[in-house]
Amino acid sequence: MDDDLYLEHLHVGQRFTSAMHVVTAEQIKAFAQQFDPQPFHLDEAAAANTLLGGLAASGWHTAALTMRLLVDSSTIAGGVIGASVDIAWPRPVRPGDTLQVFSEVMENVPSRSKPDRGNVVLKSETRNQRGEAVQILTSRLIVPRRPHSQ
Amino acid sequence: MDDDLYLEHLHVGQRFTSAMHVVTAEQIKAFAQQFDPQPFHLDEAAAANTLLGGLAASGWHTAALTMRLLVDSSTIAGGVIGASVDIAWPRPVRPGDTLQVFSEVMENVPSRSKPDRGNVVLKSETRNQRGEAVQILTSRLIVPRRPHSQ
Repeated sequence: MDDDLYLEHLHVGQRFTSAMHVVTAEQIKAFAQQFDPQPFHLDEAAAANTLLGGLAASGWHTAALTMRLLVDSSTIAGGVIGASVDIAWPRPVRPGDTLQVFSEVMENVPSRSKPDRGNVVLKSETRNQRGEAVQILTSRLIVPRRPHSQ
Repeated sequence: MDDDLYLEHLHVGQRFTSAMHVVTAEQIKAFAQQFDPQPFHLDEAAAANTLLGGLAASGWHTAALTMRLLVDSSTIAGGVIGASVDIAWPRPVRPGDTLQVFSEVMENVPSRSKPDRGNVVLKSETRNQRGEAVQILTSRLIVPRRPHSQ
């Protein structure tokens, strides 16, 4: 596509904002049943007496929803391919929360061994409707350089 | 439960092994459709010409499957609650791969500010049927201390 972002187009400080996603109790429970079946992700009453103090999304659910928001708003050439990530979950995601992802390019390092690509470090903060961070994701992405013919 | 593991029961070097899970092309596509709709996770033919060289699971799918295997095999008191994690995906997960998680306690640090809990660093390597690491996860978990009455 004409608007594909190659390594050359990504500069430190560049920012991206995703669309929004409303998290429901049903989504929280459905994800948890499949991937993280613990009381605080499955049942309001059982969750009340846990460390999380009420029903909350699995951190992996927040991560997956963040990826969906990133993919839908990204035009990085070749797709969003991560080699490694760090994640912190400073605050729980509750039913009814509206999530939005705010990303910033932190580093852009052409590969020495593979001249057709480079590594981009992207910091993506997932915030709720009060602007509070519920996830801070730092991703090391593999991004292709623009082909010579273009 | 009698076999609940409190902070006092987790020592550096302690190891845990999960059950196994077989990943199918259908599971890979279903997860991707919901959370990571990119060609290399959705369609064999489209995936062949990408950096991943064929259909592969989303890293977030591998992470979610790893969490399910960890939760099913864990008896940590209060559940598996992560404050933050690092993840590397050194190798793709392909249709038909059998995943198993091998974990080891790396650190156990009682909290100074909250005497009822501590932090445990757990390293969890997810391996395929050839013993190759497909994900290396380092988790900082919040684990309760044994209540005084017990």
